[in-house]
Amino acid sequence: MNIKMLVYILGKVLLIEGILMILPVFCGLFYGEREIIYYAALALIYVVAGCLISLKKPKNMTIFIKDGCVATALSWIVLSVCGCIPFMLTQEIPSFTDAMFETASGFTTTGASILTNVEALSHTSLLWRSLTHWIGGMGVLVFLLAVVPMTGGSNMNLMRAESPGPSVGKIVPKVRSTAKMLYLIYLFITVLEIVILFACGMPLFDSICSAFGTAGTGGFGIKNDSFTSYAPHIQWIVAVFMIMFGMNFNFYYFITTRQISKAFKISEVRVYLIIVAVVSAIIGFSVYGIYGNVEETARHSLFQVATAMTTTGFATTDFDLWPSVAKFLLVSVMFIGACAGSTGGGIKVSRFQIMFKMIKREVESYIHPKTVKKLHIDGKTIDADVEHSVALYFFIYLVIFVGSLFIVSFEGHDLITLFTSVTATLNNIGPGLALVGPTQNYSFFSDISKWVFIFDMLAGRLELLPVIVFLTPATYKGIVKKARGIRG
Amino acid sequence: MNIKMLVYILGKVLLIEGILMILPVFCGLFYGEREIIYYAALALIYVVAGCLISLKKPKNMTIFIKDGCVATALSWIVLSVCGCIPFMLTQEIPSFTDAMFETASGFTTTGASILTNVEALSHTSLLWRSLTHWIGGMGVLVFLLAVVPMTGGSNMNLMRAESPGPSVGKIVPKVRSTAKMLYLIYLFITVLEIVILFACGMPLFDSICSAFGTAGTGGFGIKNDSFTSYAPHIQWIVAVFMIMFGMNFNFYYFITTRQISKAFKISEVRVYLIIVAVVSAIIGFSVYGIYGNVEETARHSLFQVATAMTTTGFATTDFDLWPSVAKFLLVSVMFIGACAGSTGGGIKVSRFQIMFKMIKREVESYIHPKTVKKLHIDGKTIDADVEHSVALYFFIYLVIFVGSLFIVSFEGHDLITLFTSVTATLNNIGPGLALVGPTQNYSFFSDISKWVFIFDMLAGRLELLPVIVFLTPATYKGIVKKARGIRG
Repeated sequence: MNIKMLVYILGKVLLIEGILMILPVFCGLFYGEREIIYYAALALIYVVAGCLISLKKPKNMTIFIKDGCVATALSWIVLSVCGCIPFMLTQEIPSFTDAMFETASGFTTTGASILTNVEALSHTSLLWRSLTHWIGGMGVLVFLLAVVPMTGGSNMNLMRAESPGPSVGKIVPKVRSTAKMLYLIYLFITVLEIVILFACGMPLFDSICSAFGTAGTGGFGIKNDSFTSYAPHIQWIVAVFMIMFGMNFNFYYFITTRQISKAFKISEVRVYLIIVAVVSAIIGFSVYGIYGNVEETARHSLFQVATAMTTTGFATTDFDLWPSVAKFLLVSVMFIGACAGSTGGGIKVSRFQIMFKMIKREVESYIHPKTVKKLHIDGKTIDADVEHSVALYFFIYLVIFVGSLFIVSFEGHDLITLFTSVTATLNNIGPGLALVGPTQNYSFFSDISKWVFIFDMLAGRLELLPVIVFLTPATYKGIVKKARGIRG
Repeated sequence: MNIKMLVYILGKVLLIEGILMILPVFCGLFYGEREIIYYAALALIYVVAGCLISLKKPKNMTIFIKDGCVATALSWIVLSVCGCIPFMLTQEIPSFTDAMFETASGFTTTGASILTNVEALSHTSLLWRSLTHWIGGMGVLVFLLAVVPMTGGSNMNLMRAESPGPSVGKIVPKVRSTAKMLYLIYLFITVLEIVILFACGMPLFDSICSAFGTAGTGGFGIKNDSFTSYAPHIQWIVAVFMIMFGMNFNFYYFITTRQISKAFKISEVRVYLIIVAVVSAIIGFSVYGIYGNVEETARHSLFQVATAMTTTGFATTDFDLWPSVAKFLLVSVMFIGACAGSTGGGIKVSRFQIMFKMIKREVESYIHPKTVKKLHIDGKTIDADVEHSVALYFFIYLVIFVGSLFIVSFEGHDLITLFTSVTATLNNIGPGLALVGPTQNYSFFSDISKWVFIFDMLAGRLELLPVIVFLTPATYKGIVKKARGIRG
């Protein structure tokens, strides 16, 4: 394992976090809040420490896939631990477990909260809390790749471990250019949302925080009732932006490079939009009786489907009170999740596409036993490797899901609460049903369960395998041997 | 498609069903019930019709895997339709949908009932109802194979479509001998259970019906409270027999042939027994407070775990009142299911074994990228084909599960009822939780939902794929063309 390189990466991550922490300081200055002292001090410490640690560039910058997994998992842990300290110092979230839960929930773009009264937080902390969504949405290592040059294969091994979806498609031949391109698109749409929301009458602070939450498909609100009390047109705008951020970013790349027809031919995006439309329509019919008018029904249906499918986690209504079929559909799209290559979580639309194609081929193989068919998506052949990894993803997902549910079930809450709390954290959504419904929060869980959720949020955001590799003792075999002097 | 052979098989199936229907006639004679008229008449009709249909043995007895799937699915449909008619004629279950539900539930060894008062049934019908479990447990086509000689490959294609588990291990080189051996073991243990139960003070009729229900891992009881009112020692005996019928029958084959050490080395059996023991222990701790004494706690825990894991569906206590962790574990083992090559349902222990081995190898491939490892179980290599089919099984399972849940969710019942009703039918268990808990039944569902459940029970018993192939239009392409005279 390339430990020097690991340390170097972690140093850079700390540096980036320190720099980003300056943003809430400015915000706090504007509002004249005393909390900025802690943020400023920590920003300084992180920047200095990060610089010192990553001062010396390692000669050997090669990163194998194993190292990539460890680097990614560690980066996210460092991010969360260092990111939660301000909440503890300001005494806004005094408990370490709670502060970690909130911060991990932020960076992993889950949006599950342990806060019973969000509005009591200072503007400084609210901004930092929403900013974690924005940082986590596109990924801090992708950012690192955009600014730090590395050798080809190593880049991919880092990016593959952090990017959502079954396989990272390099938009442009060079990983670094891809990372830059992704961040530029991300930044542009975020700013666009801020401007539109502000222009439509939302206060600037609310616009910024909401845009951060939408962009990262995070879901932290700055109001106790999430988006319920905002004006209908604001809710429409946010719904559209949520759907936009759940789309495969290749779409925007094609749009940017004026390959419009190519953009609309991405089958994942089309399937994704069809699911959003169909599910919203069915839910609309089933809840029409509750709202009684078309606009309100359409708005709440689309918003809730968008928030569940993109795994954002905002809410404009208490969907826990909806009929069974609507709740079932919402939970289903929570599992499906957004597109690969978006900022959204969940299992991802393309994994389901591959799954269905595999089923279709299997059935055909029974009918015409002698034909061997390769699978295709958008004209590209799907490797047997990718098929294999999709199957493995589902298996590991199942194991983590059931394992988490087992530990959490000792809490003794009703099964719907337990099931949807694991669903909402592992898929990086935020709210679930019953006791973790949209009007509730996670504060009542024991510390053990909270740590299970923290693990689930990280595992979900990093697409499971990197976290498993990080936790496997065999990963560190070489190091122990080295330390014991058995091998040079 | 070999239609002549299909018709021949269906004729034989009808013949077998007719012969078996004579058993309840004898029972009814003993009790002097008038219902026997219907059973006797139907038995006669089925035997005569079956004989006539299968009179002419087709020259070409070759069956391809596609034909095997269609033959299997059709056989089970014929069995269920013809098996439900007596219930309608005796007016004990007048509705066709209900009678089909009850009979399909019997043959598929599910044990879910639409009867609100089982004890009102005649002894004749009660015995027929329990006998369907016994017939369905080992499979009617396996029985057919045991008595009708066929060519080698065709046998396998039929047996593979009907036998539980990822791959049919031929115990002895010839399929026919394997089928005979399986049925002999099955018959022997069933008779053993009848004798022991009778010797321990259970009435003979109850002993026979209970043994049929246990042997097929079915779950129909002949009392409204299932096994709650039977003596504790009876409950212990049934628990042990349930566990025995959930074991891979290779175990008994090895025992019979005095290869004792080989029998105990079957890893699936060991894993299965360990899961039963561990889960029973954890549940025992969690429900000790309810019963307050060790014997009762142990008995109820083991019985309920055995009934859930083997997918039998008996009950000695209302486990719907148990704490969350116990309910969660029960539902979990319902999914795991029994061993492959047993009479039990569910996903099967060996599929999970293969799944875990695949996960382990995947993680190792990240740590040591260059090693390619074959998977092994009990010293035998697992083909890539088998791995593939396990993954596909999970995928198809997921699609059927979610699809069923979607349709059923329009009923508007609580999500636990909906979720566990699909769980209990697709895994061939019987009772679930909440409204379909052990003290409840399925009578309140609409006809549409009942047909969904009938589909799920059949799909679950036939291991999904045969049913899917049966329902795929492409399967019948050749026939349509033939009928149109395009091809000779």
